[in-house]
Amino acid sequence: MLVLVSYDVSTETSAGRRRLRRVAKICLNHGQRVQKSVFECRVDQAQLETLKFQLLDEINEAEDNLRIYRIPEPLGKHVMEFGRFRATDFDDTLIV
Amino acid sequence: MLVLVSYDVSTETSAGRRRLRRVAKICLNHGQRVQKSVFECRVDQAQLETLKFQLLDEINEAEDNLRIYRIPEPLGKHVMEFGRFRATDFDDTLIV
Repeated sequence: MLVLVSYDVSTETSAGRRRLRRVAKICLNHGQRVQKSVFECRVDQAQLETLKFQLLDEINEAEDNLRIYRIPEPLGKHVMEFGRFRATDFDDTLIV
Repeated sequence: MLVLVSYDVSTETSAGRRRLRRVAKICLNHGQRVQKSVFECRVDQAQLETLKFQLLDEINEAEDNLRIYRIPEPLGKHVMEFGRFRATDFDDTLIV
């Protein structure tokens, strides 16, 4: 199954930027970054639970917002993409 | 139907910030902002087409990335949210 992870953190603080990097690392173990704070992960049900708990361990629930969306098959019917795909650009230093 | 609009634009330029504001305005006509560049819109099929074309009119496809995801019902099964919901915080000046 495809899940979309979108994560909103204040990147004005170094702690926030560090959390974003750690969230990105966890998500990249399961999929790819499609936008600055949006990741598409391929997981089964058990992996989704693991992903969820790993992410909850990293985020600061008092400050950040984490959203996980299950995107059902067929993806062609549920996902539309326009413009420049920039996933690879995100591995260098994250300036927001 | 619920659609998720996530929009990635370089906000280092004033043109990029203006495009993000205009994208936000369009999306807010149909729903709410749930993260800095992520919006949840309630639309029917015809409204989705209108939303899509309005957004494509605004974005710079050479620089930006726009993703639209259809999120089927029941939402409780397809959407998980954790942490602080900050939708209302985004109406003031967007500092990224």
